[in-house]
Amino acid sequence: MSSVKNHFLDLFFYPESVAVVGASRNERSANFHLVSNPVRLGFPGKIYPVNPSAEEIAGLKAYPDLASIEGDIDLVVIAVPVNLVFDIVKDCIAKKVKGVTIIAGGFSESGARGRGAQDEMLSLLRENGIRAIGPNALSPVNSANNFIVSFGAVDRLPKGGLAFVFQSGLYEPRLNWFFSDLHLSLSKLLDLGNKMDINEVDALEYLAQDEDTTVIAMHMESIAGDARKFMQLLKDTTKEKPVIILKSGRTAAGARAASSHTGALVQSSDAVFDGVLKQAGAVRAQGLDEFFDLAKIFEYLPPLKRNRIGIANFSGGEGVIATDFCQFNGLSLAELSPETRSKVRSVFPSWEIPVNPFDMGVSAQFHNATNVYQVVLGALNEDPNVDCLAIQIGGFFPGDLDQLVKLLSEVIGKGKPLVTWLMNTGRGRDMVEQLESNRIPVYASAERAVRALGALYRYGGMRERL
Amino acid sequence: MSSVKNHFLDLFFYPESVAVVGASRNERSANFHLVSNPVRLGFPGKIYPVNPSAEEIAGLKAYPDLASIEGDIDLVVIAVPVNLVFDIVKDCIAKKVKGVTIIAGGFSESGARGRGAQDEMLSLLRENGIRAIGPNALSPVNSANNFIVSFGAVDRLPKGGLAFVFQSGLYEPRLNWFFSDLHLSLSKLLDLGNKMDINEVDALEYLAQDEDTTVIAMHMESIAGDARKFMQLLKDTTKEKPVIILKSGRTAAGARAASSHTGALVQSSDAVFDGVLKQAGAVRAQGLDEFFDLAKIFEYLPPLKRNRIGIANFSGGEGVIATDFCQFNGLSLAELSPETRSKVRSVFPSWEIPVNPFDMGVSAQFHNATNVYQVVLGALNEDPNVDCLAIQIGGFFPGDLDQLVKLLSEVIGKGKPLVTWLMNTGRGRDMVEQLESNRIPVYASAERAVRALGALYRYGGMRERL
Repeated sequence: MSSVKNHFLDLFFYPESVAVVGASRNERSANFHLVSNPVRLGFPGKIYPVNPSAEEIAGLKAYPDLASIEGDIDLVVIAVPVNLVFDIVKDCIAKKVKGVTIIAGGFSESGARGRGAQDEMLSLLRENGIRAIGPNALSPVNSANNFIVSFGAVDRLPKGGLAFVFQSGLYEPRLNWFFSDLHLSLSKLLDLGNKMDINEVDALEYLAQDEDTTVIAMHMESIAGDARKFMQLLKDTTKEKPVIILKSGRTAAGARAASSHTGALVQSSDAVFDGVLKQAGAVRAQGLDEFFDLAKIFEYLPPLKRNRIGIANFSGGEGVIATDFCQFNGLSLAELSPETRSKVRSVFPSWEIPVNPFDMGVSAQFHNATNVYQVVLGALNEDPNVDCLAIQIGGFFPGDLDQLVKLLSEVIGKGKPLVTWLMNTGRGRDMVEQLESNRIPVYASAERAVRALGALYRYGGMRERL
Repeated sequence: MSSVKNHFLDLFFYPESVAVVGASRNERSANFHLVSNPVRLGFPGKIYPVNPSAEEIAGLKAYPDLASIEGDIDLVVIAVPVNLVFDIVKDCIAKKVKGVTIIAGGFSESGARGRGAQDEMLSLLRENGIRAIGPNALSPVNSANNFIVSFGAVDRLPKGGLAFVFQSGLYEPRLNWFFSDLHLSLSKLLDLGNKMDINEVDALEYLAQDEDTTVIAMHMESIAGDARKFMQLLKDTTKEKPVIILKSGRTAAGARAASSHTGALVQSSDAVFDGVLKQAGAVRAQGLDEFFDLAKIFEYLPPLKRNRIGIANFSGGEGVIATDFCQFNGLSLAELSPETRSKVRSVFPSWEIPVNPFDMGVSAQFHNATNVYQVVLGALNEDPNVDCLAIQIGGFFPGDLDQLVKLLSEVIGKGKPLVTWLMNTGRGRDMVEQLESNRIPVYASAERAVRALGALYRYGGMRERL
C-alpha cells in the first residue's frame, strides 16, 4: 500500500482508527453510509461509530461519545450539525486525535458570525496540533485501502491513477456515476470545502508525490493557500503528471456565488489565472462537462506527443464538424500515406475518393461494418503520418463489438491514442461499458471526443517541448 | 393540412403520388424502409415501389419500371446506385414527373467527372421542368401527412413546430433519437445534399411561410444559392420565427472536408459569416451538441424577453458553475425581492443565508425535496424580478415527480421560460421522458441548460428591441 511518508495528509488517507461522530443507524440516512461504506468495502482500519442512542451501527459497536472509546483515534469524521461542532472539537482535543474532517456548513460561508466561529475553531485546532479538512467538506476517499467518507451508498471503488480534488460537494451525487457510467478508476479524492486549514496547496503537494496517482483533476473556486507556492508546485508537478484544473467563480457573479457558499475570496481576473495556468503547464477545463471528459481521457491514455489525426465516421457532414473541432483544438488532419489511400480503397465504391476524414457511412452501404473498421483502422494504424485517431461507433452497429474492441486496442497498443464517439451513449450503455472496460474512451459527440484528445495533445506536446 | 401554395417545394412535402425506384423487399434493407415507413405511418398519397424483380413490397404492388405505372407521378425517389441514376432520370422525363429526390452520392463531391455528370443531369432536368433534391440527399420528411424518405425504420413522427434542414446525412441515424430521446416534434425536415437544384434559399423561403413551422434549425456547410437573397430572407424570417444555424466547414481543413463530400465551395471567412448571421437575427450554434440543444429549447419554449435568472440546484459548487455560464451566455442573476428571500427561509437552516443561486442541497438535508422545490419554485415564480429559471433535478430525487412537473409547468405557464438539468440523463431516461412530455426541457449539465436559455434570450431580447 503506497503512501507519502512524512506528509500530514497521509493521516487522512491512511488512518488506522477513525471515529464517526453523528453516525446514524437509519440505513437510509447519509450518516449511516459514513460508516457502512468503509465497512462494506473492507477498509482494514478500526471504525468507531459515535451515537449516544445507538448500540450498533452497520455491525459495529457504537459509542456514546469519543471519551468512551478505549483505543487511540487518528481521525474523527465530525458529522453533526454546525451548532454541535465546537463541543465535538473539544472532545477531539481531550482524546488527542490527530485529524478531523468537518462536514457541517454554516461557517465562513454564512456571514460574519460564521467566519468568526471558523477562525476561532481554527485557532483551537492549531493550538492542539490537530489538522482539519473542511468545514463544509466530505472527504477523503482512498481506493488503496477503501477508506471513504461519503453520504451515498457506494458499492465499489475501482482503483486507478486518477486523483480528484473538489472544493465543494458537487462531486458527491456523482461518485457512483464516476464508476458506473464514466468508468473512471480513482486513486484518491479530496473535497476541501471552506479550506479553513487544509487547502489546495496541501492537496497538490501530496498528490504530486503519491505513487498511486498518475493524473490530478482539481476543481477550485479560490486559492486559499500560498498562491506562489501553488503555482511553483503546479509547474513542478506537470513535468511528471498532468494536472487538469476547473476553476469556477470566473465571472463577477460567479465569484460572488462562490463566496456565499464557501466564504472564500475569489480572484477577480480570470484571464490572469488562465495565463498563469498555461505557464505552469496545467490543462484548464472550461466547465464541468469538459472537466470530466478530460479526467477520463487522461486517466485512460498516455499524453499525446504529436497532433496528426485520422478520422473515420458515418457521414460526410459529421466528418466536417469533427474536422472543424480538431482545428479548434490544435489537432491537424493527417496527410495520409499513399499506402493508406490504396488500402482503404477496397471498402469504398469506385466513385468515392476516400479522404481523411473517412466517411464509413458510404462503405457500410456495401460492406460489413466490422470489415470496414478492420480495413480503415488497420491502414491508419500502420500509417507513420498518423499520430492519433477519432472514430465514430455506429449506434446501429451491426458488427462484432469484440472484434472492434480488439482493433481499437491494437491502435492504442501501437502508441496512437484514440477517442471514439457514439451518438446515444444513454441507450448504448452496454457498448460504452465494453469499450471503456478496455480503456477505449467513448464520448457522446465528435466535438467532445476531439476536445478531449486536443487536451491530451496540449499537455503531451508541451511535455515533449520541455 | 397546411401547405405553402404556389411554392414548388409543396410538391415535395405534399405529393399525391410517389414512386420509389430501387425499392427493396428485403425488410432489413434501407431501401425497404423507403416504402414501408410512409405505409406504416399512414401517408395518404399513392406509393409505387419500383423493382423489376419484386411483385410486392410492404404490401404494395411493385412495378418493374416507371413506365408500367398507370397513373401520374408527382415525385420520384431515385434510390439506385450512381451509375443507374441517369437512366432513371430519363424515365422520369418520359413519365412527366414533376420532382425527384436523388439519394445516390458519386456526383460533384467525387471530383471533376462527377461534377460534370451532375451539371449535365441538372441541365437535363431543367430542360424538362423537373425540380430536384440532391443528389446525395435523403428527404423530405413531413409530419403533417407522414410522408417520409428515410433509410431506417421509423415508428412515429410526432407533429410539432420544428423544421430541420440538413446539408448532409448526419441527421439520418438520429431521426428516431430526435423523437425517443430528445423528445422533439417536427413539422418538416429537408436534407439537401449536393444542392444541385434545390438549396438553402428555397428551403428557408418555404419554411418561413409554412404555418406548421414555428422554429427553423438549419445545418449548412455552404451557401449554394444567392447569398444576398438568403441573408434578406433570414432577416425577414427571424422577425417572425427563430432560425438556428449550424454552419460547419468553418476552418480551412473543415472547408476542404466539406468540399470533398458535397462538392461545395465553402466560404472561407467564418468571422464574416458570423457577423452577417448576427445582423440577420439568426441564432448560431457552435457545434452539433449545441444545435440540438437549441432546437429543443426553441421548440419547447417561447422566446425569452428579459434575462434575470433564478437558479436552484443541489450544491454550492454547481451553483457557481451555473452562474459563470449564465454570465457567459448573457443572463444575469436576478436580485430577488425581499418577499422571495423571506419565503425561502422556511426551507433553509437558520445558519444558511439563502441567496440566488439557491443551494437546495442544504435544504434537502432537513426537508422533503418536493417541499423544497415547492417553496423555492413558488417564490421565484411570484417574484417580479425573475424572468427565467434554471433548476437542477436531483438524480436521486426521492420526491413526487408529478408534483415537480406541475410546479415547473406553472412557472412556464406564468410566462417564465425555464430549463432543468439532470446529472445522468442516460439512467434517468424515465424522468426525462416525463418532464419533456410536458415540454420542460432537460439537459445533461447546468452549462448546457444555461447555454440554451441564453440563446432563447439572445433571440427574444433581439426581437424585443426591434
